[in-house]
Amino acid sequence: MSDCIIIGIAGGTASGKTTVAQKIKEVFGSNVELVSHDYYYLPHNDMTYEERTKINYDHPNAFETDRLIRDIRDLKAGKAVDVPVYDFTIHNRVDDTVRVEPKRVIIVEGILVFENEELRSLMDIKIFVDTDSDERLARRILRDVKERGRSLDSVLTQYTTTVKPMHDQFVEPSKRYADVIIPRGGQNSVALEMINERIKSILR
Amino acid sequence: MSDCIIIGIAGGTASGKTTVAQKIKEVFGSNVELVSHDYYYLPHNDMTYEERTKINYDHPNAFETDRLIRDIRDLKAGKAVDVPVYDFTIHNRVDDTVRVEPKRVIIVEGILVFENEELRSLMDIKIFVDTDSDERLARRILRDVKERGRSLDSVLTQYTTTVKPMHDQFVEPSKRYADVIIPRGGQNSVALEMINERIKSILR
Repeated sequence: MSDCIIIGIAGGTASGKTTVAQKIKEVFGSNVELVSHDYYYLPHNDMTYEERTKINYDHPNAFETDRLIRDIRDLKAGKAVDVPVYDFTIHNRVDDTVRVEPKRVIIVEGILVFENEELRSLMDIKIFVDTDSDERLARRILRDVKERGRSLDSVLTQYTTTVKPMHDQFVEPSKRYADVIIPRGGQNSVALEMINERIKSILR
Repeated sequence: MSDCIIIGIAGGTASGKTTVAQKIKEVFGSNVELVSHDYYYLPHNDMTYEERTKINYDHPNAFETDRLIRDIRDLKAGKAVDVPVYDFTIHNRVDDTVRVEPKRVIIVEGILVFENEELRSLMDIKIFVDTDSDERLARRILRDVKERGRSLDSVLTQYTTTVKPMHDQFVEPSKRYADVIIPRGGQNSVALEMINERIKSILR
């Protein structure tokens, strides 16, 4: 068994993936590193800002998943990696990278992290955070409108034209690969305690 | 905290609930007692065998759930209980009872154990075993035809007229009360290890 545990956390947009990841981090602190699939959105320097806003960011092809797979393999092998940095405000990757050191627990998080078979096969524990779609939409609206300053119209148009169809086509079917499905996301303390006990037992 | 952990295991017919319960029992042995909701099917001494075969056994009203709740409360309080005995071959409760001693871990298992709010509230961990409906039907046919000697016609008629509609009306909606949902049932070793580690940590 490897010294490093890879935990995959998938789930629809605004399902509470990050909250689950944060709660695991609270328990295991500096032993945990979080790597988001979002960091690996492909760069589009050839496009204008306007064109980049029209990309389907919920399709598997929007990501440089090969690089994520390489990085996870390296981290698992005890090597530090330089992960790309994505800037949501300009919808593009920036030139910078961030150095990530190997840790005992690596959390790989994103809506589509169970969609890719090779990525999936690297994970020791696969958790799918399952939250009702209306609850997820409500959270997404609040987040995008209040925190990201987007218009309600643009949020709902994007939701209806790409987020929801991609969810139904790729995210929801990938739930079947999960080892455990957690309803209600980060508020589900019984499930979180279960996950934490399992991590502790592997780390012992 | 009580000295006794109540674990609820729900899921559709032939989803693998019993396998999950057995695998927990393999780890914790004599510390575990399994109580099935099926033991509490209501007696129907007033009916003929023919009439009893026509009862809807997948509806919450088919069970004496009040008695199960009382028994779980007693077990939790450290008292032994006498659970009823149900004979599937005659579709009726028999006069006998079985003495069940209080144990550190009590598993309450059945398709509808999350449907009743009071029963649900007694559980420390709620596990829903989620298996595809076609896989469950295939297993149910094999079990009822090969092990219970029933005709294929009667199995399929019962499935279509009561098992499936009751599943959709009562079992599937109760999934939302689960703390964790386990896909693929008893073959899911990652989830089983998680559950076992959680039980161990409570027992420590």
